[in-house]
Amino acid sequence: MPETSTSSSSSTFIIGLDYGTGSARGVLIDAATGDLIARKSADYAHGTYDEVGPDGSRLPSDWALQDGDDWLHAAETILSALASAVPAGGKVAGIGVDATASTPLPTLADGTPLSRRFPSAPHAYAKLWKHHGAQPWADRIEELAPACLARTGGRTSCEWLPSKAGEIADNAPDLWAATERFIECGDWLVWQFTGHERRSICQAGYKAHWTEDDGFPDILDTIAPGLRDRLAPPLPVGTAAGTLTPEWVARTSLPNAPTVAVATIDAHAAVPAVGVSETGTLVGSLGTSSCYLLMADRMEPAPGIAGVVKDGIMPGSWGYESGQAAFGDILSWFVRTFCAGEAPAAAFERLNAEAATIAPAGTGLLTLDWHNGCRTPLVDPALSGAVIGLTLQTRPVDLYRALMEGICLGARRIVEVLEDSGLPVHRLVITSGLAEKNPLLLTILTDIMNRPVVVPDAPEATARGAAIHGAVASGCYTDFPAAVAALGRRAGRSLEPDPSAAARYETLYGLYRQEADAKGGGDMMRQLRALRQ
Amino acid sequence: MPETSTSSSSSTFIIGLDYGTGSARGVLIDAATGDLIARKSADYAHGTYDEVGPDGSRLPSDWALQDGDDWLHAAETILSALASAVPAGGKVAGIGVDATASTPLPTLADGTPLSRRFPSAPHAYAKLWKHHGAQPWADRIEELAPACLARTGGRTSCEWLPSKAGEIADNAPDLWAATERFIECGDWLVWQFTGHERRSICQAGYKAHWTEDDGFPDILDTIAPGLRDRLAPPLPVGTAAGTLTPEWVARTSLPNAPTVAVATIDAHAAVPAVGVSETGTLVGSLGTSSCYLLMADRMEPAPGIAGVVKDGIMPGSWGYESGQAAFGDILSWFVRTFCAGEAPAAAFERLNAEAATIAPAGTGLLTLDWHNGCRTPLVDPALSGAVIGLTLQTRPVDLYRALMEGICLGARRIVEVLEDSGLPVHRLVITSGLAEKNPLLLTILTDIMNRPVVVPDAPEATARGAAIHGAVASGCYTDFPAAVAALGRRAGRSLEPDPSAAARYETLYGLYRQEADAKGGGDMMRQLRALRQ
Repeated sequence: MPETSTSSSSSTFIIGLDYGTGSARGVLIDAATGDLIARKSADYAHGTYDEVGPDGSRLPSDWALQDGDDWLHAAETILSALASAVPAGGKVAGIGVDATASTPLPTLADGTPLSRRFPSAPHAYAKLWKHHGAQPWADRIEELAPACLARTGGRTSCEWLPSKAGEIADNAPDLWAATERFIECGDWLVWQFTGHERRSICQAGYKAHWTEDDGFPDILDTIAPGLRDRLAPPLPVGTAAGTLTPEWVARTSLPNAPTVAVATIDAHAAVPAVGVSETGTLVGSLGTSSCYLLMADRMEPAPGIAGVVKDGIMPGSWGYESGQAAFGDILSWFVRTFCAGEAPAAAFERLNAEAATIAPAGTGLLTLDWHNGCRTPLVDPALSGAVIGLTLQTRPVDLYRALMEGICLGARRIVEVLEDSGLPVHRLVITSGLAEKNPLLLTILTDIMNRPVVVPDAPEATARGAAIHGAVASGCYTDFPAAVAALGRRAGRSLEPDPSAAARYETLYGLYRQEADAKGGGDMMRQLRALRQ
Repeated sequence: MPETSTSSSSSTFIIGLDYGTGSARGVLIDAATGDLIARKSADYAHGTYDEVGPDGSRLPSDWALQDGDDWLHAAETILSALASAVPAGGKVAGIGVDATASTPLPTLADGTPLSRRFPSAPHAYAKLWKHHGAQPWADRIEELAPACLARTGGRTSCEWLPSKAGEIADNAPDLWAATERFIECGDWLVWQFTGHERRSICQAGYKAHWTEDDGFPDILDTIAPGLRDRLAPPLPVGTAAGTLTPEWVARTSLPNAPTVAVATIDAHAAVPAVGVSETGTLVGSLGTSSCYLLMADRMEPAPGIAGVVKDGIMPGSWGYESGQAAFGDILSWFVRTFCAGEAPAAAFERLNAEAATIAPAGTGLLTLDWHNGCRTPLVDPALSGAVIGLTLQTRPVDLYRALMEGICLGARRIVEVLEDSGLPVHRLVITSGLAEKNPLLLTILTDIMNRPVVVPDAPEATARGAAIHGAVASGCYTDFPAAVAALGRRAGRSLEPDPSAAARYETLYGLYRQEADAKGGGDMMRQLRALRQ
């Protein structure tokens, strides 16, 4: 049964489905008021294949596979539960779907996943975003340096669809020959739900170098022969892909056949959920890594952004994605590494309390937040973390606080890169589980940014965002701004920077820039990495 | 009773007295064979006054005082015990004394310590080398930038005699008016033993800016009025100061009145003890900090050396002192900070075993060994430690090993500075308790130095070195080379570098230089320090 939170007097509802890394969640929302009526989550029956493959064989250490059929079972569970929460007489106008990306799977022409035909072949399964087995193909794309990399700082990623296609084509050519479509998780779910293969500009633009002028670039066929024939032209987000098939209506007992929107990427779905439809508001999703999304009315070549896609976040604007390869992960590393024998939650609580007694920028330490490489602005996975300023008096909590400050300095660097590129950031909105659990981190972020930070009270923001896509696609609202105004959740905490803390961080940020420029420009970290490997 | 280790058939003996920070030690040595006949140690009755002063008042946190009378009681204990170990019919030809420096005390004209007259006045006591209350006077000397700082890289130290004199003169002017002599611990002990005020070039040259051409510089009177009148011209090491007074012979029951040598500094006393009397051999004493001593046949202005003194280590050569402000202290900091709840000895044992499984330079980390500032070559206490290359996979033992490598890289930098200054290092001899307890550290040092490293088996090396001074002063040998050949201990472990490890460290050392030059040349660490304070 779903958790039901609010009774509603409206008769029209929308559903958002959010396919995360470890599980899927769904929300039923009142289409008029935005009230959350019910929510339901479901695990994937086989989880993620990251050590042992579906055939019982050991997988390489950087692999991560999922089974498309698990996603369908989760959808059935969630939609059935939400259907039972629809008040009598009510109807569901639209469904929106978001998913991790790039998480592509090979299928037949009718959408049948290859994993059903070749259940013991690992390459027949969906490759989760964090599957890192395709690095050689990413390297090859970069060596060939196609023009299509201009928007991503000359870089691609082993996580993206073309690299993963190349991995199958070269390492499992028979399977590649049997592959008739190669498609993102979200797009494939929409296809399953509607019977129509309708892909999204969001996935194509951010994860496969598609552009509105040139479509999918030639390099895709170079890296995986025939790849472009296995794709399909994508549609703007908010477009209706079709209505839920009679079979799915029957499986879920929904009261009607809702319109299904083309898919979006999970991080991007958060933007409408926190009430943002305007240009110039940066929405930061802070988790293990961080992702920053900004809409602007023009295309500017900002260095090191993960991507810029026209209509990629919402139609009518350019959507910029940037981020840090590690954010909360760096704090988790600290606790895992230096608080052995202490429960992580207790360690975080203790450290946060202790760290709060230290003055802003008062540890005497400066850290670089590159423990997992630098995404924006340097797009260099070979970079690494650093700590400067250690003394014989340095305590563990000093290092912990300095790491907190370091990840926030890295976030400020991204804002600076955007603004220096002619993309002004007027407002800063944060959506993060970390923000709930770690108020000190939010205070540090606000003071380092030296501008107000808003943290909307928007639980299940990602699924809510997907639902807003469904509301737009189904015509409940004429466009995203109208839907966002009604269904987004802007209210929440608002933090103002403390002037004296901000002044101290100004100095620290100057040092961060100095160190980041030196290490980012030199090859010391690359040499250290070579010594390590 | 003394520990007696070897029976001897000779009839002539020598004694070395070593005044360390926490206690004094003495050795009785066969003057012909160098065999260690007996040893004895003694604590200082009042220890070090570093929290509560002699009058029961609380001391500032950076103070460290000792009572000269405690040193005399220790001498009586040790000499009496050693006297009882002299075989019947034997005689003691000479006594040598080494002590920490700069550890000066104010006295009357007859050598009476002011602390006997003014027992409740903290400034009347000896100020131990690690008393750091005199920093403002060191700063003032540097501001005035007298010519005498040319040999110490433009710097002086709050640990040195002139700064400590300034502290008394300004903060206790009545006591300064009552002070008739201001004298180092070792020199004062020689005065007490012989009845003659005979000071040493070693203490004057390394700790009071005395030079053979200009004597004590004018700045001493600027910083503490009348200071030069309270000093005395120093004599070369190995000079006889006199014979033990009848009173001391009676107090200790020595069989005769030995000749007493002028004093030397403890670190410098180790050089003859490990069999070194030649130019071009670097003797490294590795402890909480490190000290490197080299004799050369000429004066070269090597950057950042702690001092160069003609006849300062042995007559006939220039003695160069250089060092790292923290060495073993950095490893102790790691264990204290990141191995809470584990006994330090057990933690070191575990970490050394784990660290030994990591390839040389294989952690992917580079560290700067400046947790307590950089002594040689940058002479900058405001510098601090750094770690570059952190990843989400970095383990505590990786950091520990990288810190071990970092302190050895810093040691190599010192060798390089000396050689680049025209002071070739032909041989490298290490004397260290760390070397006994931590063979991995010695292996790393040898591979990083990429040259053979010798670790003589010379227990009580410092006290043995003092005894050798006594042997020279008393005429048992014509000069230091002859005495060292007979009484020094060259034999021990000899390590050869591993070529493949050395090649990897060559790369790491290049990175160390790059980082050290960048951070040493910039003001980032100074700014971080300012934020901390």
